[in-house]
Amino acid sequence: MSGNSFGRSFVLTSFGESHGPAIGGIVDGCPPGLPLCEADLQQDLDRRAPGKSRHTTQRREADQVRILSGLFEGETTGAPIGLLIENQDQRSKDYSEIATRFRPGHADYSYTMKYGRRDYRGGGRSSARETAIRVAAGGIAKVCLRQLAGIEVRGCLSRLGPITLPAPGDAGFDWAQVEQNPFFCGAVERVAELEAFMDELRKSGDSIGAEVTVIAQGLPPGLGEPIFDRLDAEIAHALMSINAVKGVELGAGFASVAQRGTEHRDEMSPTGFLSNNAGGVLGGISTGQDIVARLALKPTSSIRLPGRSVDLSGAATEIVTKGRHDPCVGIRATPIAEAMLALVLADHLLRHRAQNAHVEPPLAPIPSQAP
Amino acid sequence: MSGNSFGRSFVLTSFGESHGPAIGGIVDGCPPGLPLCEADLQQDLDRRAPGKSRHTTQRREADQVRILSGLFEGETTGAPIGLLIENQDQRSKDYSEIATRFRPGHADYSYTMKYGRRDYRGGGRSSARETAIRVAAGGIAKVCLRQLAGIEVRGCLSRLGPITLPAPGDAGFDWAQVEQNPFFCGAVERVAELEAFMDELRKSGDSIGAEVTVIAQGLPPGLGEPIFDRLDAEIAHALMSINAVKGVELGAGFASVAQRGTEHRDEMSPTGFLSNNAGGVLGGISTGQDIVARLALKPTSSIRLPGRSVDLSGAATEIVTKGRHDPCVGIRATPIAEAMLALVLADHLLRHRAQNAHVEPPLAPIPSQAP
Amino acid sequence: MSGNSFGRSFVLTSFGESHGPAIGGIVDGCPPGLPLCEADLQQDLDRRAPGKSRHTTQRREADQVRILSGLFEGETTGAPIGLLIENQDQRSKDYSEIATRFRPGHADYSYTMKYGRRDYRGGGRSSARETAIRVAAGGIAKVCLRQLAGIEVRGCLSRLGPITLPAPGDAGFDWAQVEQNPFFCGAVERVAELEAFMDELRKSGDSIGAEVTVIAQGLPPGLGEPIFDRLDAEIAHALMSINAVKGVELGAGFASVAQRGTEHRDEMSPTGFLSNNAGGVLGGISTGQDIVARLALKPTSSIRLPGRSVDLSGAATEIVTKGRHDPCVGIRATPIAEAMLALVLADHLLRHRAQNAHVEPPLAPIPSQAP
Amino acid sequence: MSGNSFGRSFVLTSFGESHGPAIGGIVDGCPPGLPLCEADLQQDLDRRAPGKSRHTTQRREADQVRILSGLFEGETTGAPIGLLIENQDQRSKDYSEIATRFRPGHADYSYTMKYGRRDYRGGGRSSARETAIRVAAGGIAKVCLRQLAGIEVRGCLSRLGPITLPAPGDAGFDWAQVEQNPFFCGAVERVAELEAFMDELRKSGDSIGAEVTVIAQGLPPGLGEPIFDRLDAEIAHALMSINAVKGVELGAGFASVAQRGTEHRDEMSPTGFLSNNAGGVLGGISTGQDIVARLALKPTSSIRLPGRSVDLSGAATEIVTKGRHDPCVGIRATPIAEAMLALVLADHLLRHRAQNAHVEPPLAPIPSQAP
Repeated sequence: MSGNSFGRSFVLTSFGESHGPAIGGIVDGCPPGLPLCEADLQQDLDRRAPGKSRHTTQRREADQVRILSGLFEGETTGAPIGLLIENQDQRSKDYSEIATRFRPGHADYSYTMKYGRRDYRGGGRSSARETAIRVAAGGIAKVCLRQLAGIEVRGCLSRLGPITLPAPGDAGFDWAQVEQNPFFCGAVERVAELEAFMDELRKSGDSIGAEVTVIAQGLPPGLGEPIFDRLDAEIAHALMSINAVKGVELGAGFASVAQRGTEHRDEMSPTGFLSNNAGGVLGGISTGQDIVARLALKPTSSIRLPGRSVDLSGAATEIVTKGRHDPCVGIRATPIAEAMLALVLADHLLRHRAQNAHVEPPLAPIPSQAP
Repeated sequence: MSGNSFGRSFVLTSFGESHGPAIGGIVDGCPPGLPLCEADLQQDLDRRAPGKSRHTTQRREADQVRILSGLFEGETTGAPIGLLIENQDQRSKDYSEIATRFRPGHADYSYTMKYGRRDYRGGGRSSARETAIRVAAGGIAKVCLRQLAGIEVRGCLSRLGPITLPAPGDAGFDWAQVEQNPFFCGAVERVAELEAFMDELRKSGDSIGAEVTVIAQGLPPGLGEPIFDRLDAEIAHALMSINAVKGVELGAGFASVAQRGTEHRDEMSPTGFLSNNAGGVLGGISTGQDIVARLALKPTSSIRLPGRSVDLSGAATEIVTKGRHDPCVGIRATPIAEAMLALVLADHLLRHRAQNAHVEPPLAPIPSQAP
Repeated sequence: MSGNSFGRSFVLTSFGESHGPAIGGIVDGCPPGLPLCEADLQQDLDRRAPGKSRHTTQRREADQVRILSGLFEGETTGAPIGLLIENQDQRSKDYSEIATRFRPGHADYSYTMKYGRRDYRGGGRSSARETAIRVAAGGIAKVCLRQLAGIEVRGCLSRLGPITLPAPGDAGFDWAQVEQNPFFCGAVERVAELEAFMDELRKSGDSIGAEVTVIAQGLPPGLGEPIFDRLDAEIAHALMSINAVKGVELGAGFASVAQRGTEHRDEMSPTGFLSNNAGGVLGGISTGQDIVARLALKPTSSIRLPGRSVDLSGAATEIVTKGRHDPCVGIRATPIAEAMLALVLADHLLRHRAQNAHVEPPLAPIPSQAP
Repeated sequence: MSGNSFGRSFVLTSFGESHGPAIGGIVDGCPPGLPLCEADLQQDLDRRAPGKSRHTTQRREADQVRILSGLFEGETTGAPIGLLIENQDQRSKDYSEIATRFRPGHADYSYTMKYGRRDYRGGGRSSARETAIRVAAGGIAKVCLRQLAGIEVRGCLSRLGPITLPAPGDAGFDWAQVEQNPFFCGAVERVAELEAFMDELRKSGDSIGAEVTVIAQGLPPGLGEPIFDRLDAEIAHALMSINAVKGVELGAGFASVAQRGTEHRDEMSPTGFLSNNAGGVLGGISTGQDIVARLALKPTSSIRLPGRSVDLSGAATEIVTKGRHDPCVGIRATPIAEAMLALVLADHLLRHRAQNAHVEPPLAPIPSQAP
């Protein structure tokens, strides 16, 4: 398999290049009877869309998604759902210079060595444009999670370069504020600081990394498959598959290296778990606590400052990346990370039913968090 | 799928509980014509085996692996390779107390809610004993990688609780020393410090987290599938699927959040890459640079200090974990992490051949690192 | 998985309903560097298209396929290939009567019981219209087989109801004649008989079954995976997945029940195999002989003669299928069967390379057939 | 994937050669809470075992299966079930002659061309011995089907060479008689005829083909996935993957080629379906009628009459197959065919729950057959 599918029971398969006629995908396995329309997906596509502020690429794509199948009288039928987004604002001329040179930090070299060639127009298949289909499919997964299990998936920016922002649960964090600024920052009073940082960065011609936090709430205990397809392993897979991601952690994450067992283990009481260092997963299976995951995104390599490289003949060269690029790909990554988390959870919700639909646990679920 | 298989072309499927008669597995898809014998696997199993020092669990298992199929006249035939390890040192009486109580930080609660029951003897399927089969299968993957592509996989302990150790490439790190101490530490002069820390910890009855670094060297560029099955996403999946792992990163990892593009992007020259912030993967495809991955392991929750919990009826209780446990599961994790990395790479080596066996890249590979 | 994907290494995923805006698919895993254009697929789509003679449904669809991705400068890139066919000639009014009644022999009842609902417009997802995407994807598979291995896939009608036609290898059979009549019959002198039979049938309002034979020539020995994914088992799966197919056989097929071992076993000589009762597969692996498979297609159940049935309330009813239907679905099935055979072979060509790209057999292949 | 796994949600993976130390398998995805013990599997293994009459091979294997995992207190836990059967009666000396010669009709040549070598002892991986693990796993599937859905799977011999036997539903057929003779014949008064035929055949040194019929009763409507993973396509795959099978059909099967639509389509009434030409599947989804499938088995090629062949150097040779072989592999095939059908149905029962566990059909199921 060439890796353009994700999931086992709720499966997204995608296609499309940055500068081809369209990108698209197929969601297979969606349960029947779910109310669904294009607006459900468009909402997240609009959150991801570029060109909304001066801090993201000025490429403008309407990113209007069409649902081509799998719906009847406003509900899913159980048939695969075809998704299509036509590409519009393609400026192939911007990219002609990179046809014979490998941009450092890009997939140019690795694609060429793998396939013997590459579609160099706008990054071709390796462009982050591909993530629009993830977001559209994630929108279907969100509907599925909400309707069948009352699960909600949300995310926010938690770090921008050197700036650490309040994360969910922190003082000063408010989910309502996340959607009110182009950074997905949960503390509006910090937005000015972010804007100043980005304005300075843009002037320098450089780019910066970021960290995004995604959360799922309302999970039943029991999702995830032990051993290889643990829920946390699948989440790590999903988030690491997003362009530019270099690290993933759940719950205490890398901080657990320095923790003691008495500190890390989440004690339990009849009124709820007493902490959430696990990030909602034990033994690879959800506990019913919030899933908490963080992903580290590298600074984009598409910068206008010259870099050393080689060309198709293997000779030394220098390269400057022109075109329109995000100086911080992490800013628009929140809806993408939410989509990937939603796809994992929808898949595992269905996988769990396959084996365990008849199971009645011997006790009622413990609340996610003790009051 | 219930998640007891890993890989698409080079596939490990495993079975077995801590206190059943045996654990075992099947490796399907191994290429024919590879010289292989049980000793190739035993080597890594012995490295992982408990009871080798006072710093790991005193449970003693010979962990003698038998190869039951797939070999003929000392070579692989292309048929699936059956693996079996008989369990020997089972003391089920140690675990009787936990039958009706959920140990905090363990899979007891999540398994019970998923399946409606659990095999509580020694953790059953959720026991880290299962990783012995990963190590055996990883031994086959290592032979495959070495024979077909000259790839070597190695690992070491890079952090133990608050102690940071030299990592590969650091001054003071020596691969030869890694195998000469029970910690897989690449700097023998630091071992006394580790021993003192562990002795103190053991006395306290508490446990501690750790970080392991794994490396693959000699990769050709081109391994990995773009989009969802990126090489780094699959590595994240593989490493996060190991018991107790809470975070995974490649190359600069979480440090890339604070990096600028000019700092992060790895420039290239005809004599090699000029840095390796990418950790050997760009656009999800190997560049030929060393794969560098780190995993964070939480402190084991099996500690003899009492913790608050609930029982099968949902009532409050207290629990003390008796039995023989590792105070730092990270110490024995190095061979397991190597095995999982090797499994991912062997799988992608074969997957790459499926689609691209006929491809001739237009230039010779750039060296991993400029001199 | 909901079964809208086929293959492991060369994978088709499809979507679309008879009366939705479009049908489409994604081919993932296609090797890079293959010359490909829309005309390569259109050729087979035109062979399958309805409305070409009075003997098939009068629904007229241009069935113009668009390739939306995966091509660059006229060659495949290794990226997934998006396929789209817009639906044009939809007459939903023809189907309004069947909304609450189950047509005997159709999927109406089984879909309703599975999903709790069904898209009844033109059969929805269960319409044979879906096979157009199989044919388009099969066209890509054919290019892949031809370019990488010199394999050719062809088919013909071998029985129409009570009429047995010459099959490949029989006296009077000529491949050149297959494309010169709307029946895919390899003996033009028999076409008048077929036309007379069909004219009579159409007058009666009834329908009839048929048998199609598909052949692959030029295979190397070694394709197919032993045990469960034998080449013949995958071919059976592929052909039986075509609408209306009720039986599949290879080589001597059901006739081998009455054969003796001395008669059935295909003896070998240095100049070639001495017979082909196996149909080109031994132990699930290709021998290099022609693959010969036959499929039995039932008479379509869409006939204008009334039939007894039940309605959505479970009450007895009678139903007459109006609309435009093929009186013999077998007539247009030849390109579909070819496509499915080509998809299986392309998949196994790649799967074989994954495990065995480095293998050198100890002897040269034996010719397919002794002179 | 190398094809040693079968199923998506209820998955069997197998290993082992005829003359290795053991054969075995892993069943992954089995629902928890099912009462299960080794005797449940042994029953079918004993039905398949060779050496029970003079009409099958005289190789004697106790075929004692051990369950190594996945059980706790007599019930399945949801963990994978490890299966092991030690090989006992291996006479490798019988096979030494075939090391350098290819037996006609065997996998010798195709394996050698695929893998560059083969384990020639007793057929190695291509031996029908492998089917013992299918039968053991099928025993688990049968328990699953019975416990969760009330489904029963049974089979019988319906043709032996030129002799046609009564099939289920025919006058003179009695399920109770099937288990009372070594042929799985449902009409004991026909057994003498079979014995006479076989005695004559054995004297001649030749072998003969056979046809087996398998049935599943008690299915709910709704199992199977439309398009590629239709229930009938998966059944065809499963049955065709059994050694020596050359054809598979459902319901009217190949007879439907000559049927008219009015004859073939199964009309429905509130008291049940009025016929079963479909064999229980419409549009790839079960209707609730009995699944009826037939498989054609070729005569074994292991006969002591000399045949022409080639050797490893490609030169002409003659070969006589010594050793102990079944003159009609179809005789012992009934439990194997049942096992494969059970595996498909268990898999689809679980796959159906993944997507549709929440669905409530608008009407009660129609009875399988009108009285």
